[in-house]
Amino acid sequence: MSVLIVGTTALDSIKTPKAENPRLLGGSASHAAVAASFFSPVKLVGGVGEDFPKKYIALYRRHKIDLEGLEILPGKTFHWSGEYELNMNNRRTLATELGVIETFSPTLPKSYQTAPFVLLGNIAPALQHRVLDQMQRPKFVVADSMDLWLNIALDDLLKLLPRIDGFVLNDSEGHQLTKEDNVFTALKKIHALGPKYVIIKKGSHGSILSGPKGFFICPAYPLSKVVDPTGAGDSFVGGMMGFLASAKGPIDANIRRAMVYGSVTASFCCEGFGLTRTTKIKRADIEKRVKELEKLTKF
Amino acid sequence: MSVLIVGTTALDSIKTPKAENPRLLGGSASHAAVAASFFSPVKLVGGVGEDFPKKYIALYRRHKIDLEGLEILPGKTFHWSGEYELNMNNRRTLATELGVIETFSPTLPKSYQTAPFVLLGNIAPALQHRVLDQMQRPKFVVADSMDLWLNIALDDLLKLLPRIDGFVLNDSEGHQLTKEDNVFTALKKIHALGPKYVIIKKGSHGSILSGPKGFFICPAYPLSKVVDPTGAGDSFVGGMMGFLASAKGPIDANIRRAMVYGSVTASFCCEGFGLTRTTKIKRADIEKRVKELEKLTKF
Repeated sequence: MSVLIVGTTALDSIKTPKAENPRLLGGSASHAAVAASFFSPVKLVGGVGEDFPKKYIALYRRHKIDLEGLEILPGKTFHWSGEYELNMNNRRTLATELGVIETFSPTLPKSYQTAPFVLLGNIAPALQHRVLDQMQRPKFVVADSMDLWLNIALDDLLKLLPRIDGFVLNDSEGHQLTKEDNVFTALKKIHALGPKYVIIKKGSHGSILSGPKGFFICPAYPLSKVVDPTGAGDSFVGGMMGFLASAKGPIDANIRRAMVYGSVTASFCCEGFGLTRTTKIKRADIEKRVKELEKLTKF
Repeated sequence: MSVLIVGTTALDSIKTPKAENPRLLGGSASHAAVAASFFSPVKLVGGVGEDFPKKYIALYRRHKIDLEGLEILPGKTFHWSGEYELNMNNRRTLATELGVIETFSPTLPKSYQTAPFVLLGNIAPALQHRVLDQMQRPKFVVADSMDLWLNIALDDLLKLLPRIDGFVLNDSEGHQLTKEDNVFTALKKIHALGPKYVIIKKGSHGSILSGPKGFFICPAYPLSKVVDPTGAGDSFVGGMMGFLASAKGPIDANIRRAMVYGSVTASFCCEGFGLTRTTKIKRADIEKRVKELEKLTKF
């Protein structure tokens, strides 16, 4: 089955003490869509400017991503630039140029409106609502978010939560939303806001699912070197939704394995700047790491 | 088989905004010994003062801990007092009174010298050396440590590492020792210092083993409420060594499961002040949580 993915489609300029990586393909929708594409057909929703490089359109196409919902708008593509410190742990934003995304409001093509799986990737909650408003009874809807929306669009976000099946956020956002330090208590409080499935991401420490069948402790694939974690969270949720859309049977029977596939897809994302590493792998590379993770967690 | 455990035997006064818990039984050896006692016979090595409460001797005895190596010395028992903030995350030391531990130097009873499993719990590396000097070809030796010894006794610690089979430390100590942020890189660097097995503890994020059979990602048992994490690391390594000493077959066949048993024993430790919760459980309670952890990590 197909996954509709909305989110930002951006150009990311990532500077490190050793190199500059100008105008890489980035944005939550790009990362999630490429990750999901290893498992299922993807329908992308986003807006880019007239400056959006043709090579990135070709990249989406190589991943068989449906671009009917990608609008090319007058103006410039959303551009983010940031700089990493030598240890790659601290990142600071140098510039954020919203460009066309400032006024972007998605209108879904008819063929998109019946997609059974919907990933509302990290973008303003108002746009996540707008996409959901145009959908016809999707089977499974998951939303991702970020601290920015908790700060400036909390009401919109809180109204979104009862409309979705699953909500994905990181541990600091979980704390911000619930005022709870404890992940497991935070998870329970987030259920009370609406979603049946809540996933808290903990970076290299893996992630925790709370759902109708209880908790699942999902490992992260061990990486000795992280080149660029930008987009890892989007790759995780994209890979997860792609896998879920490809799997037979109920969500509960597949979601744990889907998270592991998402986790492994995110591990590749971290090994290169932007999407440079993720776009070089094959499904077989993912399968290999999933098998390794099985061995690494068995007791 | 039996486990010899050396470490501090202390009285801990733990203050919180809601309660005072004066002079609880504490210290690395106490926590590790009680944890190990659920699985194997324990031989305790330590020194206490004449003020050491008889009820704590009785507590050790209830756990069938061999006290031939517990010396009662003229003076006062090592006393630590600390205070937690309301969210239980930040702890500050109010006072450290070393008492008899300042000049303590263990002399092992003859019956201790052939113990097959040795846990050099957190105490000055010079004392860990001294215990090892008196042992006759132990089968498996593991040492724990803390940031204090990395700061003030690094040479002693570095000389200890080639003498032991396994080394256990937490992630910040791993970083301090190797200058590596990445856990997996830090693990490799620590192998080069001597130990064949290295375990990095990550608190509520679980722990990572690096050994001859590669990595193992060990989960932490999910706790919605942490009352007092004091001694959790000691309980982890104590439970692990107790389980290893009870298991048939080679270390490599048992160490992963041993870590899970240690992790679960530590979870009980966190649910009460000092040893109050751990001393109320039975082996069956541990088994129940190990089974739960199996379910929580399966995919």
